[in-house]
Amino acid sequence: MNSDSVAMTDLSGKMHKLETVCIFGTGDFGRSLGLRLLQSGYSVVYGSRAPKNSLLLPKGSKVMTHAAAACDAHVVFVAVQREHYGFLSSLASDLEGKVLVDVSNNLKRGLYPESNAEYLSRLVPGVTVVKAFNTISAWALQSGGLDANRQVLICGDCADAKQQVVDIAQSLGFTALDRGSLRAAAELEDLPLQLFPLWRLPLNIAICLTAFIFFYALTRDVIYERVTNGKDIAFRIMISLANKAFPIVSLVMLSLCYLPGALAGFLQLYNGTKYHRFPDWLDHWMLCRKQLGLLALAFGFLHVLYTLVIPIRYYVRYRINVYTISLVKDNNTYEFDNTAAWRYDSYYSMGILGFGLFVLLGITSLPSVSNSLNWREFCFVQSKLGYITLLLCTAHTFLYGWDRFLKPASYRWWMPPAYMLSLVVPCVVLILKLILITPCVDRNVTRIRQGWERQGKISANGRDTKTNHPLIA
Amino acid sequence: MNSDSVAMTDLSGKMHKLETVCIFGTGDFGRSLGLRLLQSGYSVVYGSRAPKNSLLLPKGSKVMTHAAAACDAHVVFVAVQREHYGFLSSLASDLEGKVLVDVSNNLKRGLYPESNAEYLSRLVPGVTVVKAFNTISAWALQSGGLDANRQVLICGDCADAKQQVVDIAQSLGFTALDRGSLRAAAELEDLPLQLFPLWRLPLNIAICLTAFIFFYALTRDVIYERVTNGKDIAFRIMISLANKAFPIVSLVMLSLCYLPGALAGFLQLYNGTKYHRFPDWLDHWMLCRKQLGLLALAFGFLHVLYTLVIPIRYYVRYRINVYTISLVKDNNTYEFDNTAAWRYDSYYSMGILGFGLFVLLGITSLPSVSNSLNWREFCFVQSKLGYITLLLCTAHTFLYGWDRFLKPASYRWWMPPAYMLSLVVPCVVLILKLILITPCVDRNVTRIRQGWERQGKISANGRDTKTNHPLIA
Amino acid sequence: MNSDSVAMTDLSGKMHKLETVCIFGTGDFGRSLGLRLLQSGYSVVYGSRAPKNSLLLPKGSKVMTHAAAACDAHVVFVAVQREHYGFLSSLASDLEGKVLVDVSNNLKRGLYPESNAEYLSRLVPGVTVVKAFNTISAWALQSGGLDANRQVLICGDCADAKQQVVDIAQSLGFTALDRGSLRAAAELEDLPLQLFPLWRLPLNIAICLTAFIFFYALTRDVIYERVTNGKDIAFRIMISLANKAFPIVSLVMLSLCYLPGALAGFLQLYNGTKYHRFPDWLDHWMLCRKQLGLLALAFGFLHVLYTLVIPIRYYVRYRINVYTISLVKDNNTYEFDNTAAWRYDSYYSMGILGFGLFVLLGITSLPSVSNSLNWREFCFVQSKLGYITLLLCTAHTFLYGWDRFLKPASYRWWMPPAYMLSLVVPCVVLILKLILITPCVDRNVTRIRQGWERQGKISANGRDTKTNHPLIA
Repeated sequence: MNSDSVAMTDLSGKMHKLETVCIFGTGDFGRSLGLRLLQSGYSVVYGSRAPKNSLLLPKGSKVMTHAAAACDAHVVFVAVQREHYGFLSSLASDLEGKVLVDVSNNLKRGLYPESNAEYLSRLVPGVTVVKAFNTISAWALQSGGLDANRQVLICGDCADAKQQVVDIAQSLGFTALDRGSLRAAAELEDLPLQLFPLWRLPLNIAICLTAFIFFYALTRDVIYERVTNGKDIAFRIMISLANKAFPIVSLVMLSLCYLPGALAGFLQLYNGTKYHRFPDWLDHWMLCRKQLGLLALAFGFLHVLYTLVIPIRYYVRYRINVYTISLVKDNNTYEFDNTAAWRYDSYYSMGILGFGLFVLLGITSLPSVSNSLNWREFCFVQSKLGYITLLLCTAHTFLYGWDRFLKPASYRWWMPPAYMLSLVVPCVVLILKLILITPCVDRNVTRIRQGWERQGKISANGRDTKTNHPLIA
Repeated sequence: MNSDSVAMTDLSGKMHKLETVCIFGTGDFGRSLGLRLLQSGYSVVYGSRAPKNSLLLPKGSKVMTHAAAACDAHVVFVAVQREHYGFLSSLASDLEGKVLVDVSNNLKRGLYPESNAEYLSRLVPGVTVVKAFNTISAWALQSGGLDANRQVLICGDCADAKQQVVDIAQSLGFTALDRGSLRAAAELEDLPLQLFPLWRLPLNIAICLTAFIFFYALTRDVIYERVTNGKDIAFRIMISLANKAFPIVSLVMLSLCYLPGALAGFLQLYNGTKYHRFPDWLDHWMLCRKQLGLLALAFGFLHVLYTLVIPIRYYVRYRINVYTISLVKDNNTYEFDNTAAWRYDSYYSMGILGFGLFVLLGITSLPSVSNSLNWREFCFVQSKLGYITLLLCTAHTFLYGWDRFLKPASYRWWMPPAYMLSLVVPCVVLILKLILITPCVDRNVTRIRQGWERQGKISANGRDTKTNHPLIA
Repeated sequence: MNSDSVAMTDLSGKMHKLETVCIFGTGDFGRSLGLRLLQSGYSVVYGSRAPKNSLLLPKGSKVMTHAAAACDAHVVFVAVQREHYGFLSSLASDLEGKVLVDVSNNLKRGLYPESNAEYLSRLVPGVTVVKAFNTISAWALQSGGLDANRQVLICGDCADAKQQVVDIAQSLGFTALDRGSLRAAAELEDLPLQLFPLWRLPLNIAICLTAFIFFYALTRDVIYERVTNGKDIAFRIMISLANKAFPIVSLVMLSLCYLPGALAGFLQLYNGTKYHRFPDWLDHWMLCRKQLGLLALAFGFLHVLYTLVIPIRYYVRYRINVYTISLVKDNNTYEFDNTAAWRYDSYYSMGILGFGLFVLLGITSLPSVSNSLNWREFCFVQSKLGYITLLLCTAHTFLYGWDRFLKPASYRWWMPPAYMLSLVVPCVVLILKLILITPCVDRNVTRIRQGWERQGKISANGRDTKTNHPLIA
């Protein structure tokens, strides 16, 4: 379109305007789309029920009755809600042979048995329906695609019609992606109705873990104290218990984020090739590692705030006061314990450094930052720095526990302290990783990841088969 | 151009180079533009006052006198400052019929009565002037548009000339947007001189509010103490007073960020349609909600730091010390108050959770993050999570105040404590929202937002009129 | 291609499919590329060693033997590792006259004397080799270039062949950049193997500085105490010493980030023109200012955490306890020192405000945020706010030191306290800046930055010569 017109200018010196596009519907989306088309050099004609009363349309556009508007253009955008599609069937003869672009979305999932685009196609027989632009908001159209999703997903049964919509999308500054036949329309119409699909599993894990740790600690601390000593320390729920649950969830989720990678390594070693598909649960797990990590960071952040607020808590000030006064009364002194000084300071230091690295990992997973890294840099940050973070946080937890696991008093009602539970998964991950980076195992894994296959495992055509594992390994 | 050349290759097997572009001026911008044009396949000719002395131009470009350079190309970029435009009038015959692209910017606003592009058009009569590329920096041209503003705004009186510039911009990897006739040039030249226009109102609100709260608290705390008890506690200005002003401003601005949405809901209920334009002040207010929220977050962040620093303050250590010693001397003990323990811990907990959610809101308003969300996800985060944040922060403030509002001693000089003032706006917003989400009201608002209109309010052509409200509702 | 096909549709009403592209190799990259090509409207043919066994290729593609696949297409992507290039020489006759696109990367730098693309060109004599797409990951191809690096770097010796690859890249939604002849291939193959090249220098500076300050403080505090008083305070290493090193490194690196700008200003004043090239070390230094600043922020962040953790440290609690008890025993009271209250509170306040602004600077240097600013806004934030940050942090350090520099006891073993060392560079930068913004100097610098040149310094053609200084000044 676009470039062709210039070619003609060069040859003949005559000007060739971009084609006319028709838009049915003068709502938010219709107006934003029209403005953008005009800005990109198209002529725009609106089809309206009452053309004379249509105000506030973009300057430079024309407005007519539906039939008149359609007659000027080859491509007609239907920016009308599905419930009002009815009038289109009466325009069938005017629309004969045209390309109808369905941009509609539904308010809820599963409202209708068939997609809006397929319904439109059935309703107006002589036309070619293309589904497109439904993932683009009116806002993205107005703001020029600059800081908004730039990807237009397109589907339809006629390649030629699709290509015309692709051209329009590209002229408007968007990237077009063909998603297949019109049967894919249902899927496309589902996209804007999704609510964080990749976050669902990690979020559920986080909620269940938090609830479990919270009730575990509640039983061990508050209920035990109540039953055994008859003391009510339920006020601890707000900060002390929260500050037990949050770091534990954070550590477990951080290690869950690195566990699938380690498992995949062992699986590849066992299979002797990287061209075996991973089991589905592992695939799914690997795809939500980023979300697991970010939730772990959020819980870690809360843990930091809950910890830093400790010295201004009423209860803590009370305890310190009581302790000081008791020392004075007993004419005692606070004996300085050098080991305790080392231990506590190391404990805080590990935690701070671990959290600092964790924040760095979080920042590099922001889309705009990770895009500016090349593959090697991304792997270095997310894998090397990630494992160092895990190591520091695990060491932080070990230093917190110190020798308490040896003291029988720690096992109230045969329940070990919560922090001990939290160490299981990280230790497993770190041990697996340790095995994977021993020189002899590492050499094998590296060879396999570069495409090498163990004899006897090799398939007829080598690396060309059975290969659909996730790209990030 | 671009694709046409390939088409010709396909047909004839002969190669068709992209056209020649001329650049007047060999400064930073001229050189960066030339390099980029060369990289995209254009031939580049520089026009210079002293062609023989022009060093450091991109490899592959040619440099000639202005007249000779212009003769080879149809499009001439004028990368010269407005003050030096004079020499162009003498080239009028050489430039006859060419497209002159004005890329200039001024150093200050309002230096000249007419825009640079219009001045250029007047100066060289036979040419077509197009204003473009002035919002793109030399840096963005060099770095390949990768992590820099990718949008080229274009205006001019001749559609054909504009189309040629659009093609060049697109070949260079930019998105082109037509902004109308050459009269829009003044507006385009203003864009790079703007300094945070959307932040101005929120920033002024923040500064005024901070000043007011600061002086209010200064009067109530420091001056009152001085006048009544003759004690000088002016040192409190640095932290205690700042830590009163910051959280109050943060809470008020957070609620100001949600107030217009609630007002708009009631206005739509009252009008019985969403197709009534909002009053201008409400429109303007709604457009700067993001900035209001981010400033509130910044103040909240300062509040967190000021709070966490409390236990290492000299004054606080002194007070605790004095209190402990006085207890020892009076042979007293610190009576543990279970309610106080609950209250303080809940107070901190609400604050921490509120701040955590607030940071999450801030992160999702980063351009690269909000682009990766669909509309439903964005609304969920900014509306649902936003109201929960407001609720938590308001609860945090209520718990801080507790029953102090009942004590007459709190009303020094008939001035209530500052935190009470801060609760007015959030409570109004929360009550309005509560009304809006009661089932019967909610049903009406939802219907209206989906396009339904109350009988008697309907206009001749229904939804096609009077509709220009902001797209984010 | 793309648009041409539509032009033909318009003229003849007949559909013109996009051309056929051949891909050799069915690994991750080959499959992702094929899928993307299909989605953008191309026909895709795979060349495989064993076509019948090739499963999991994108739906819609065909798979044949290498020779048969190559015969249908003009452009052949070679998505095979360099070690397997051997088989291509036997296909020389089938590939005669085709364009071979080399997308390969090596595992390590310097494995081979010549680039993969040049080797390929030597191996298959009759073809034209274009190096492209090697900086794009399979992941970026799959995710549609939406939130991944969108820039395809291309090099090759034949402009026509390159243009065909440019067209394909653009149809796929990428931005193409020509990087010259095939000799540039080695450079392109190096890009994905780079590991934070711009961060290397700042990181080395940070590590050396940290080590120096750490050992300096270790000598002055821990070893001095051990030697002089025989006391072991080595436990201080974990937090106290770290919290000396981090803020000092942070402050020095922040000022190192503003020093080159100030030096450049003086150099321009001395030269009397901005069209003199800066010395190489200054150029290099100016290019890594962002990295210096972000590292300074990271160290500042650690400093904040290390500071806030102070009140919960074992040692600090011990000290406070001991002090309180000693006061009680001696029947003494803590004398309130108004100056100390002012000083400590100001000290904390400066630090918090400085850190707050510093975080703001960090946020605006995120790619997606800095892209949404215009040049004037970016300069305002990074320069004006940056200097205010530096000023606040320097004031913070001065208030920390207070009058200690007057006390001989501070100079143990003739070593001044570490914080004094840290003040040297920031003070130099602030004094230089102060000189630069005095009205008379500022006027000159501004004139020079706008292109003015001092008489006697002017070159034959004025501003057109010798000009290659960095664009950010």
